[in-house]
Amino acid sequence: MSSTDLHVVVPAGGSGTRLWPLSRAANPKFLHALTGTDRSLLQATFDRLAPLSTAERLLVVTGTAHATSVIRQLPELPERNILVEPFARDSCAAIALAAAVIEQRSPGAVMASFAADHLITNTPAFTQTVRQAVEGAAAGRLMTIGITPTRPETGYGYLRLGEPAQPGTVQNVLEFKEKPTAEVAEEYVAAGYLWNASMFLWRTDVFLAELAARRPDVHDPIRTIARAWDGDDQESVLAEAWPTIPKVAVEYAVMEPAATEGKVATVPGDFGWNDIGDFETLGELLGRDVEGARVVDVTPESPPVLVVDGDGVIAVPTSSRVIATLGVTDLIVVDTADAVLVCRRDRAQDIKKLTELLRERGHAAHV
Amino acid sequence: MSSTDLHVVVPAGGSGTRLWPLSRAANPKFLHALTGTDRSLLQATFDRLAPLSTAERLLVVTGTAHATSVIRQLPELPERNILVEPFARDSCAAIALAAAVIEQRSPGAVMASFAADHLITNTPAFTQTVRQAVEGAAAGRLMTIGITPTRPETGYGYLRLGEPAQPGTVQNVLEFKEKPTAEVAEEYVAAGYLWNASMFLWRTDVFLAELAARRPDVHDPIRTIARAWDGDDQESVLAEAWPTIPKVAVEYAVMEPAATEGKVATVPGDFGWNDIGDFETLGELLGRDVEGARVVDVTPESPPVLVVDGDGVIAVPTSSRVIATLGVTDLIVVDTADAVLVCRRDRAQDIKKLTELLRERGHAAHV
Repeated sequence: MSSTDLHVVVPAGGSGTRLWPLSRAANPKFLHALTGTDRSLLQATFDRLAPLSTAERLLVVTGTAHATSVIRQLPELPERNILVEPFARDSCAAIALAAAVIEQRSPGAVMASFAADHLITNTPAFTQTVRQAVEGAAAGRLMTIGITPTRPETGYGYLRLGEPAQPGTVQNVLEFKEKPTAEVAEEYVAAGYLWNASMFLWRTDVFLAELAARRPDVHDPIRTIARAWDGDDQESVLAEAWPTIPKVAVEYAVMEPAATEGKVATVPGDFGWNDIGDFETLGELLGRDVEGARVVDVTPESPPVLVVDGDGVIAVPTSSRVIATLGVTDLIVVDTADAVLVCRRDRAQDIKKLTELLRERGHAAHV
Repeated sequence: MSSTDLHVVVPAGGSGTRLWPLSRAANPKFLHALTGTDRSLLQATFDRLAPLSTAERLLVVTGTAHATSVIRQLPELPERNILVEPFARDSCAAIALAAAVIEQRSPGAVMASFAADHLITNTPAFTQTVRQAVEGAAAGRLMTIGITPTRPETGYGYLRLGEPAQPGTVQNVLEFKEKPTAEVAEEYVAAGYLWNASMFLWRTDVFLAELAARRPDVHDPIRTIARAWDGDDQESVLAEAWPTIPKVAVEYAVMEPAATEGKVATVPGDFGWNDIGDFETLGELLGRDVEGARVVDVTPESPPVLVVDGDGVIAVPTSSRVIATLGVTDLIVVDTADAVLVCRRDRAQDIKKLTELLRERGHAAHV
């Protein structure tokens, strides 16, 4: 098959809490221009994917909270390809909804799903890897694109292969591994494991059959909804069926158990992938050097930052306020309209906990 | 004389740059409620001084920039007792203007001058010390109230006496000492030197005679202005004479040289004096303990502060923004409408330099 027959799905959800207070429940990171250009991560994702498909085959799945922003950022997408969930039911529901709607429209189609908030620096290499993975999907495999690790990262899940990774080839995935400890991450990287970047490709009929067998509690309401999607009953069917769907990740519901049965494969990829998951990465990728700081400009105004006798400061100014630091090192300082974060750099992974505490303490409006 | 004959002067100037960005050129610390009550430092100063005098004999000297705020904060002060300088000419001009105006109105009066932005916790002890110092002033001495040091502070000037300090008695001051290094400050405290808190008392005729002899360049225009002050020519005389007055501190112009001639005396005082000169002091005096932080509430709203795995954080929230810190220790974090400061606690004395840099870099509006 030609990859222009490919249906491309972008689930645009999640609030990116490790980037709080920049990324918010109300204004998640995929809506931000964190790409070094004035395009948001979501827009950059579609820019990258457009050559792999056509506007008629590009879909986004998002929630009611962000539908307006998503729709405004993607004016080229047909209305029927913007799937709005009533509320979030985790990744399995989102991706299964897209698969089932595509299956209704084009039975047995190949679909690929990519997150809305990742950066990729080498688009030609990415495109080539996707085209190779499409072949595996067309042949009936549940495909994932495994990322060649560049460090023993504890923030990602890993894929264990049956043989050494060979970029550009379809290889069996024996096992999905959860986010490891630092020590275990070292072992994984040494053993040639790949990062799981939640990039999936499959025939919609193959995926839905797997889902039906393993999780009828997700599959059945989703199929009911999908059959009604392009008709007049969408709203009433959604209202009835959607709340019954359990919250579960697609890895846990389908990919992990399918891998143990030899049904999952990967094409190892190496194309400058980054999920901009935290301020460390943001500073590294998009910061500019200013005295002892990396300043990340997320607004065109470049608000003033003054670092005196400091070093290793990551500053993210988003307002016209001055950020001034004196004598501090290895800190993250983020200033937004309603919250100021000061965080030791080696604690950047724990910002999610901070947002949970804020909710507990009654400051949910700031999260 | 009775101390109710005392004329009390409060010079309300200076921007308190070591408290930037809380204290601003446009909104200096004496206008802030940093007293633990809803009274500003300026108001608390007048509350403390009122029993020593009468409203008719309480004067404030301030600049055009803050005149409106000062006038609104002190509705009980007669209009003629609010002396507004066209622009700042340092402390000698401010205090000499008050002395000369008082001399015009009540020749040979005793006046006392106290800063607008100091905290005193033991008002009865303060009042008693002032009454003792009034006796020395009435007898023709240039009096200062020396503060019994509680630590080897490098942020204040010191007074060297001719004999061990005896609280409640009038004693000769041999020498004024500039702000010392840490090592020298230790020596001063060990040797029984007192802090100079710029509290001065004298007969206006005595002070003006000293000024005439030492600094006619200050004295002569000030006397010309004072003669016109209560008449119709105030504005035109001010416009002509004020700009000619050199900028000089009263210690340097009068008190230091007079001390070397044996004309200066002190009553040592110990009444919980603090100048709230920096965030260390502010946190110590007015902070409340919140997890690993001292939170200073300068607004009635008590904005939310969340300190996770932190210690020794001094947080000054002034808006409805959340301040959240993660894994940081011994930091000062100040959030205001147009600036965020993050400063290592042991660098609190250098915040003034930061404001100078901000001016140099074109951000004077934030200072």
